Amino acid sequence: MTTNTPPQIWLYDTTLRDGTQREGLSVSIEDKLRIARRLDQLGFPFIEGGWPGANPKDVQFFWQLQEDPLKQAEIVAFCSTRRPNTTADSEAMLQAILAAGTRWVTVFGKSWDLQVTAGLQTTLAENLAMIRDTIEYLAAQGRRVIYDAEHWFDGYKQNREYALQTLETAMAAGAEWIVLCDTNGGTLPHEVSQIVASVISNLSENINTQLKPQIGIHTHNDSDTAVANALAAVMAGAKMVQGTINGYGERCGNANLCSLIPNLQLKLGYSCIAQHQLNQLTEASRFISEVVNLAPDEHAPFVGRSAFAHKGGIHVSAVQRNPVTYEHIQPEEVGNSRRIVISEQSGLSNVLAKARTFGIELDKHQPAARQILQRLKELESQGYQFEAAEASFALLMYEALGTRQQLFEIKGFQVHCDLVEGKETNNALATVKITVKSQDILEAAEGNGPVAALDAALRKALVKFYPQVATFELTDYKVRILNGHRGTAAKTRVLVESGTGYQRWTTIGVSPNILAASYQAVVEGLEYGLLLHSPAPSSFKNFWLKENS
Amino acid sequence: MTTNTPPQIWLYDTTLRDGTQREGLSVSIEDKLRIARRLDQLGFPFIEGGWPGANPKDVQFFWQLQEDPLKQAEIVAFCSTRRPNTTADSEAMLQAILAAGTRWVTVFGKSWDLQVTAGLQTTLAENLAMIRDTIEYLAAQGRRVIYDAEHWFDGYKQNREYALQTLETAMAAGAEWIVLCDTNGGTLPHEVSQIVASVISNLSENINTQLKPQIGIHTHNDSDTAVANALAAVMAGAKMVQGTINGYGERCGNANLCSLIPNLQLKLGYSCIAQHQLNQLTEASRFISEVVNLAPDEHAPFVGRSAFAHKGGIHVSAVQRNPVTYEHIQPEEVGNSRRIVISEQSGLSNVLAKARTFGIELDKHQPAARQILQRLKELESQGYQFEAAEASFALLMYEALGTRQQLFEIKGFQVHCDLVEGKETNNALATVKITVKSQDILEAAEGNGPVAALDAALRKALVKFYPQVATFELTDYKVRILNGHRGTAAKTRVLVESGTGYQRWTTIGVSPNILAASYQAVVEGLEYGLLLHSPAPSSFKNFWLKENS
Repeated sequence: MTTNTPPQIWLYDTTLRDGTQREGLSVSIEDKLRIARRLDQLGFPFIEGGWPGANPKDVQFFWQLQEDPLKQAEIVAFCSTRRPNTTADSEAMLQAILAAGTRWVTVFGKSWDLQVTAGLQTTLAENLAMIRDTIEYLAAQGRRVIYDAEHWFDGYKQNREYALQTLETAMAAGAEWIVLCDTNGGTLPHEVSQIVASVISNLSENINTQLKPQIGIHTHNDSDTAVANALAAVMAGAKMVQGTINGYGERCGNANLCSLIPNLQLKLGYSCIAQHQLNQLTEASRFISEVVNLAPDEHAPFVGRSAFAHKGGIHVSAVQRNPVTYEHIQPEEVGNSRRIVISEQSGLSNVLAKARTFGIELDKHQPAARQILQRLKELESQGYQFEAAEASFALLMYEALGTRQQLFEIKGFQVHCDLVEGKETNNALATVKITVKSQDILEAAEGNGPVAALDAALRKALVKFYPQVATFELTDYKVRILNGHRGTAAKTRVLVESGTGYQRWTTIGVSPNILAASYQAVVEGLEYGLLLHSPAPSSFKNFWLKENS
Repeated sequence: MTTNTPPQIWLYDTTLRDGTQREGLSVSIEDKLRIARRLDQLGFPFIEGGWPGANPKDVQFFWQLQEDPLKQAEIVAFCSTRRPNTTADSEAMLQAILAAGTRWVTVFGKSWDLQVTAGLQTTLAENLAMIRDTIEYLAAQGRRVIYDAEHWFDGYKQNREYALQTLETAMAAGAEWIVLCDTNGGTLPHEVSQIVASVISNLSENINTQLKPQIGIHTHNDSDTAVANALAAVMAGAKMVQGTINGYGERCGNANLCSLIPNLQLKLGYSCIAQHQLNQLTEASRFISEVVNLAPDEHAPFVGRSAFAHKGGIHVSAVQRNPVTYEHIQPEEVGNSRRIVISEQSGLSNVLAKARTFGIELDKHQPAARQILQRLKELESQGYQFEAAEASFALLMYEALGTRQQLFEIKGFQVHCDLVEGKETNNALATVKITVKSQDILEAAEGNGPVAALDAALRKALVKFYPQVATFELTDYKVRILNGHRGTAAKTRVLVESGTGYQRWTTIGVSPNILAASYQAVVEGLEYGLLLHSPAPSSFKNFWLKENS
């Protein structure tokens, strides 16, 4: 990077329109508004909000934004060109677009002759008229227009001359941006690179107009190259990048802005958003995945939980001495953080680093440090794995440090399950015997499986002493069989995720008996939850502030 | 594509080594063997099996393959160069490599001066000696060597001259392949393209040796461009591509072979595997995700369930009239299928193809074919998945064809489990009520977990009528929670692998109650075993000869 002003790339987010095409993703108007406001904070100049008129939800959404507008971003309405053989001013669809009251409108149209004749079943000339009329009409009503050239790359390969005519028509009609869309996602980066460069040189040579529209790029991930395709287009001269948060989108998704922005800004020296906004990228990615209710991709580049996770002793000490040895960027630049994974290969340096994330400063000569490492190795050889069970690891550390409080003591439990062939629900019954604050408690509960029954019985026993237990939930449950070739005689490893509100913590249990392993993880989940929601060492709270802020 | 022979790209799979670095992925020796044999069927020329000597699991794995080798693929052992200031022949690690008995060994070494001085804490000259000695020693012992240049791209950018020296040293010592590794995953496609081209021209100019090693590429997905980077390297002259199935790997994963192969073969005209092997790609991807017990990525390019899913009326009818309008390749080429999201359609050809693998020739107009498809869709919508549970799918087909024999009938079962805190073993008790050959049987058995107890009770009841049951074993047991966010209230999917001798078959059960799901899979496992070991339709035996030969 030089000290000159870095060249600007205009981000255009389509999470709220193309992103919602993802199978399994659905959002309310409230969700859409929360996402739009978050994207606005991130500094995206264009946010595509939807297609008002195509569905009532999108109409409502634009109305709400008219009443309480975004602070910085342009909210953009999206629509197609008019239908064949009509006029623009007679299209109800375009009236709905105008009613949405945005300054900018994105119009998409056909570039591929096949899509015109076979898809729309009209003539190539009428398609050009549809593009021209629609853009001219919107411009005459005071709208600024972005033109999305659908199926651009396929169209260009099949009938280059016609494809270019569609762009020239859009430009002449007043489109300020021409966005080349790889609608089917089948194009590879070297083709994008060639075609974008060729479009730019063609348009600047052939157009007789004072308007000089800029070029944008819109890619899909069907070839697993959406991000690379967008980068290739930018390097060939495109100035706008369309994409979605977390790469949400139809089929295999759209170009992922969470990958594109750091690549453009940190690696290629373009300017997209301010540094303090880039620092919020990881949090925004996770916030949006919460709002749309999809589990975040832990292995996502830049913003995933595993993106800067390190295993193995030598590796860990190297990365601590000099992060560039195993990290391509500094995780903090995108608001992520380095994570030391506790695993079989761990050395003392991992343990110390891990303890530090819980606010515990251990010295490597301190007996507790060696004791934690030894206990860790011992448990791991029995099949425990603390990579994902950080709450159980915290309890193990408190144990070694002598600071683990005994909040309750389990004496035993019983599970009974009666299955009748052909019966839909098979309830399980659990009884549990525990001692809390010197009182013996015996409780029983039912559930639609043995683990649910056990969890219910335990809470029933604990809630009298610790009312906060009522707010805890069992949010995820994972089972893995170890030494699988010994079948059911093998050991079972259970991971239980518990939570309350937005907090989540994971605990582990291992046993040859799946119910014993589950019970162990459920019990530790309750114990850790109680530590979180009781007076506790300040180091503990620090950890939570850090992890959940 | 021309009619000339397409240029060959050598695939090198590292799912079993680099892939297992993925956080949360762990495999048994049995799992590794199943995966290796599946990759062998796919026609991959090189399969990296692990680092024998680094852990006992990998030692065992290579021994087992010496006894029962792969059919086509070269299984490759992986190791580092010798340590500083030792000799190659005194390294126990290299003795373990030789004992693994592979024809090919991959040696990785340092290319980046910083990694040598700061990481290994040795001199640049000693690093060259380490590379030379290790390769020469392995070559002298009759091994063919692939050299993985770790951190190649970072090293090249920092100290190009030294980086090239490391490659020249490896080549002169006898390495047949030089693989350029983007270890931290920070490199972008345009850089890969330039650097690979420059390496190839440098090495061909500067090397005084008769050996002409070929160049390979190994990329990671930290910049979301692993696939594009590998493609860029191939287009710049690399002839080997390293990657993993489903892109498994440390942090954000390795280059995904499930995306690379179709891009290389269908789009760029290279030859990697045979067409009939490419047709198995989707199934192999899902099989391997089942074996490693990770949910498949539904949105994965080419092989994901959503990769060719179409929503919306116009879109659907357009794609049905002319698939190229919304599909970048034909889904069948990679063994996937088009899916119409709302009106669950098609799939009949899959059923016919599947039946054929069991030796059953179905006609698409036959009512049983539609019936199987309908039942399949019904069960899949409940969470069943038959990709890895072929024995359960066979039973479903026999049911539809009216050829499923009723060998026994289950009336019900009960499980009781009593856990006492601090007690090592926690036995479970199961009782089962079944009817066999018109006789009602009630049996009870204990086990060190509820599933083991249930399995034992069932066998006890059946063995009086079917003595062959005594030879069956429960060889693996896998559990996955569906709709994981609802915790223990979610559905449980259980896969049970049963076996006798070297035969193995897998069955499935789904229920909100983990014991009910387990019971279902265990029962079908026993039933299928009895079919295998009783007089049965010849088509059934043909399947077994085919699958287990």
